[in-house]
Amino acid sequence: MKHYLSINDIDSLHDWVDEAITLKKDPYLFESLGKRKTICLLFFNNSLRTRLSTQKAAMHLGMEVMIMNFGNEGWALEYGDGTVMDKGTSEHIKEAAQVVSQYADIVAIRAFASLVDKTKDDAEEVINGFAKYATIPVVNMESSVGHPLQALADAITLKENETKKRPKVVLSWAPHPKALPHAVANSFVQMMKLQDADFVITHPEGYELNPELTQGCQIEYDQDKALENADFVYVKNWSSYSEYGKVLSWDTNWTMTQQKLGQAKFMHCLPVRRNMIVEDAVLDGGQSLVVQQAKNRIFSAQLVLKKILENL
Amino acid sequence: MKHYLSINDIDSLHDWVDEAITLKKDPYLFESLGKRKTICLLFFNNSLRTRLSTQKAAMHLGMEVMIMNFGNEGWALEYGDGTVMDKGTSEHIKEAAQVVSQYADIVAIRAFASLVDKTKDDAEEVINGFAKYATIPVVNMESSVGHPLQALADAITLKENETKKRPKVVLSWAPHPKALPHAVANSFVQMMKLQDADFVITHPEGYELNPELTQGCQIEYDQDKALENADFVYVKNWSSYSEYGKVLSWDTNWTMTQQKLGQAKFMHCLPVRRNMIVEDAVLDGGQSLVVQQAKNRIFSAQLVLKKILENL
Amino acid sequence: MKHYLSINDIDSLHDWVDEAITLKKDPYLFESLGKRKTICLLFFNNSLRTRLSTQKAAMHLGMEVMIMNFGNEGWALEYGDGTVMDKGTSEHIKEAAQVVSQYADIVAIRAFASLVDKTKDDAEEVINGFAKYATIPVVNMESSVGHPLQALADAITLKENETKKRPKVVLSWAPHPKALPHAVANSFVQMMKLQDADFVITHPEGYELNPELTQGCQIEYDQDKALENADFVYVKNWSSYSEYGKVLSWDTNWTMTQQKLGQAKFMHCLPVRRNMIVEDAVLDGGQSLVVQQAKNRIFSAQLVLKKILENL
Repeated sequence: MKHYLSINDIDSLHDWVDEAITLKKDPYLFESLGKRKTICLLFFNNSLRTRLSTQKAAMHLGMEVMIMNFGNEGWALEYGDGTVMDKGTSEHIKEAAQVVSQYADIVAIRAFASLVDKTKDDAEEVINGFAKYATIPVVNMESSVGHPLQALADAITLKENETKKRPKVVLSWAPHPKALPHAVANSFVQMMKLQDADFVITHPEGYELNPELTQGCQIEYDQDKALENADFVYVKNWSSYSEYGKVLSWDTNWTMTQQKLGQAKFMHCLPVRRNMIVEDAVLDGGQSLVVQQAKNRIFSAQLVLKKILENL
Repeated sequence: MKHYLSINDIDSLHDWVDEAITLKKDPYLFESLGKRKTICLLFFNNSLRTRLSTQKAAMHLGMEVMIMNFGNEGWALEYGDGTVMDKGTSEHIKEAAQVVSQYADIVAIRAFASLVDKTKDDAEEVINGFAKYATIPVVNMESSVGHPLQALADAITLKENETKKRPKVVLSWAPHPKALPHAVANSFVQMMKLQDADFVITHPEGYELNPELTQGCQIEYDQDKALENADFVYVKNWSSYSEYGKVLSWDTNWTMTQQKLGQAKFMHCLPVRRNMIVEDAVLDGGQSLVVQQAKNRIFSAQLVLKKILENL
Repeated sequence: MKHYLSINDIDSLHDWVDEAITLKKDPYLFESLGKRKTICLLFFNNSLRTRLSTQKAAMHLGMEVMIMNFGNEGWALEYGDGTVMDKGTSEHIKEAAQVVSQYADIVAIRAFASLVDKTKDDAEEVINGFAKYATIPVVNMESSVGHPLQALADAITLKENETKKRPKVVLSWAPHPKALPHAVANSFVQMMKLQDADFVITHPEGYELNPELTQGCQIEYDQDKALENADFVYVKNWSSYSEYGKVLSWDTNWTMTQQKLGQAKFMHCLPVRRNMIVEDAVLDGGQSLVVQQAKNRIFSAQLVLKKILENL
């Protein structure tokens, strides 16, 4: 593996999850692996968990960490080929990616979907631009279409809480006042396709995810039916993909409640809007795995960095 | 001591000041104490001294430091219980505090008073929210009502410059064009109540601090009278507490001058507006302790972190 | 050398360049030199290369790095003597510089020209203010009139690519839609005056740099003539100095092309606007040294820090 851009860059999810759980038991075991190695975290968007957990993961491996908010600390980047740069952008991705490669051994990038231009978002110009022009490995800290560090953390959390061989896992859409990207849902779906599980996606009509990603997945528009006998319920909002970036519904009948949840474990990537996505009772109760998911973000990132460092 | 939220979390100010002065002589003596320990500094407001001195203190103890500006790098936090989060806030303090606790061993927080809503400010929702929901120790880097790292640094500075057993210390209000919080003055008052000193507070009428804090303190509205035979004069602006957050006076008769200061030492927490709070001659003269106070911010923070680390 | 404010603070450019090239071969050789030493990087303006390369240089030397964006994280600074600070500025450079000196062993500062007030820009109030009032060494990370870390990196790059004893080096102005400072061009000129080279400056009339700096330099208004038999072409935009900060021309006849470049090596400090400053073919071809220049920023900074540390 050179880059970690998508959950599909993992050769064996099963082995990776096992290795991450082992890392978690002794986080500093590979402290010398990253000695004199530097990771540069570049943020084009806000971050709490990703920023702190990736930084922590790098520290566990003995790496140096350099962090930049590209938006307000760096230069506006140009991605077009052959552009005459006489407008707002002052540096081309070609130079930026090569330059960062001189100063770091790994670069990790967060650049959300615009939710305005579907073609551009699907092309993932920021992360793919870095992957194309950087001469060092690139890690995806949430791109326009995927959040594979989150999905790996979710796989770890599923494994840690599994009580049967083939659990039922439901990805359930929830309402949200603002248009949100599809990245977390996409990567969760891709990850679940690598699992031996009874996996169901439920959402209102019009909220179908990119059909290329959900191909072969069970989609159920009736939330109650989808939730029957669930072992894990992963709740998440996303905006419409077909009517790209639109909020079509704000129907709080889709809000997750303790009653709907039943005996299942509750999962969410955070940040979560209480009493919109899920009612307080769920988050404050014993079935919520959200804090454990957040903790596992460290070991998800740490495993990815370890794999890359071993390969440098 | 679990958290350091207020100067009253100190069991013996006398012993702490002595220990801080000892630390100052050999700052790296406890360099191994913080090995593999991480402190996360979260800023909801600007900072120069607090940011750099707390970072330096943590480095002296061998800790890793993670810094975040919550305002523009993180998510808008919700503090209300039971709120339906369908507006501007995207993450609840309950999750934020628990999540940060997964990534750090200590969290330090700066969140100024709004000076708009007295009840909210007095409730200190940010720092108290973290103290309530975090599972790790919380350090106050200036909250809406207190700045106990500053007050401890001030106690160290007083001790280093003391020439008599029971010095006269005057807290003197000064004019300022903008409304400022009460935090520094409050913590200074609380700290002085733990000292054996002749302590006087002087300010124009209408500028009384929270009476619960100043209970038992001598308040003198005549600045000249208050300053008579002072050994230390701590000058500071704050806005009105009774007419909450209002600037009632901008009377430059209250500006500290070399003449008024006499033989006393001058103290201020910085940043200081020259020729509003105090005239140039004082800051540029030999009686000013402001740079020494700034330096002592390191050892104030270092002692607090040391106490917490020893207790982890 | 106490401070590194200008290329003229270098005692022997020849020796420095040789030493930097040696450092580059074994970047961690002096890793213990900076142990327990702290550098504080203060940014009043955006930065990518300077921020990351200076941070990397300090890490190579084993230093601790503290980074602050003064604009949005700190306080607005006052530079005037005797000012009554009743307006927008809340801290005087006198205090800020002294305070930062308590927390770090070296302070590095970036503060661009305003391009509005020539007298103020020429006085370099920010960097000179720090140099005057700080009690620790100050490093220039680009001030209003100079960028000596860039110029030293350029000298290293010239040396690494030199094929004859006395190369012809051309500094060629290029068009740009926005008004840019003179700092890079100024320091390049000052550095070239210390070199044994055939040095020519070319630009449209009205774009003369500060005549005090270019005194003794060959200025040629005909770009074609200037470029004849060039070995190195350093392309850069700057705004007018005589009509201070104005964009007088946007003439793309001055854009560097592969044809004009001939056999010469191409240099630019980056960020560079493609197809305004220089056409794609040059940057994507084999004669461009821009990435090597960016890499050499590490060793330029590292040598400066090493010299300062050895002198502490």
